[in-house]
Amino acid sequence: MNKGILVVISGFSGAGKGTIMKELVKRYDYHLSISATTRKARTGEVHGKDYYFHTREEFQQMIEQSELIEWAEYVGNYYGTPKKYVQQQLDAGRDVLLEIEMQGGMQVKEKFPDALLIFISPPSAKILKERLAGRGTESPQEIEKRLLRAVEEVQYMKDYDYIVVNDNLEEAVEKVNNLITYDHYKSCNSVLLIDKMASELSGFATKGV
Amino acid sequence: MNKGILVVISGFSGAGKGTIMKELVKRYDYHLSISATTRKARTGEVHGKDYYFHTREEFQQMIEQSELIEWAEYVGNYYGTPKKYVQQQLDAGRDVLLEIEMQGGMQVKEKFPDALLIFISPPSAKILKERLAGRGTESPQEIEKRLLRAVEEVQYMKDYDYIVVNDNLEEAVEKVNNLITYDHYKSCNSVLLIDKMASELSGFATKGV
Repeated sequence: MNKGILVVISGFSGAGKGTIMKELVKRYDYHLSISATTRKARTGEVHGKDYYFHTREEFQQMIEQSELIEWAEYVGNYYGTPKKYVQQQLDAGRDVLLEIEMQGGMQVKEKFPDALLIFISPPSAKILKERLAGRGTESPQEIEKRLLRAVEEVQYMKDYDYIVVNDNLEEAVEKVNNLITYDHYKSCNSVLLIDKMASELSGFATKGV
Repeated sequence: MNKGILVVISGFSGAGKGTIMKELVKRYDYHLSISATTRKARTGEVHGKDYYFHTREEFQQMIEQSELIEWAEYVGNYYGTPKKYVQQQLDAGRDVLLEIEMQGGMQVKEKFPDALLIFISPPSAKILKERLAGRGTESPQEIEKRLLRAVEEVQYMKDYDYIVVNDNLEEAVEKVNNLITYDHYKSCNSVLLIDKMASELSGFATKGV
């Protein structure tokens, strides 16, 4: 059996990557990675399903023992992706989706060179600003903060494998799904076929045709 | 305008790559590369359309002046791919298809690192043998020769970007077409979008939101 593909999905806040992720999981057989965190579980959240909840000491130990693919600290809490769960899914031939920030994406790229990195971009910065304002949930200060972060994040676009413009949700979901589907045809993901052809053909050569 | 993509299509003799190429050109807007050769023009063949016909001296000069992307000698004649025509098409934003042997494919990969290399494989060596026999045009000796060449060529499969199994012609044509289409979403082929986003976003940052 061929291994599954680790798919990293990143993009500016307001690019619509959350909605795309939700649709991908609803429509297709993708598995979401489960994050580890040191923040307290909210009512109804289940350890090992929503998150892996850990103490700061446990989390620091996971970092030291290289048990995380990537990690970061936000507002006083650690968040990260445990390697073990992801590796189990990949070994079982399942594709795993990971929605993370660009700096985390770069950490994944280093540890999983065969990972597929997809960047979701709006068609223009003007539309990004309009979408953030259109949500109606963010204050003008918050919108400005997100746009200024996008200015810093734009430098990572070139480090992603593919850029999908989210102009139309339906098309963007299909594009991402197709990019993952076609990634399975990569020669590095076709090792079983290559070995089979090599062995069968060399059989012809030694036994005669 | 983004540049076109140089697509190299290779595969074992009998894998069906010729038929796939024909269908791709018939159905979609792909351009075939025009080869240079030292063999004599056959009746009806037009210089600059079917081939670029050259003397051995001219061809050797093209090799020396690095005017060829790849070249090889078969049965006493030189065959190669002139760089100039391909570069013109790519610069004009057109995708160029190149059907060549694996050794030529490796030469292209070196000179055009962004080229898309697709390997067409039959589902199994047994089916490859059956297809070669089924043509009815090759002698058993010729079939054996082609299979023995496949034994040597199988080592190049891993060096191609993608492997497309030609189990069903219709599906194989669509797969190759989609691989080329999706290659346009690669970040290295999205430089215009990245530059646009960077410039628009930094405009927000300097002028304020």
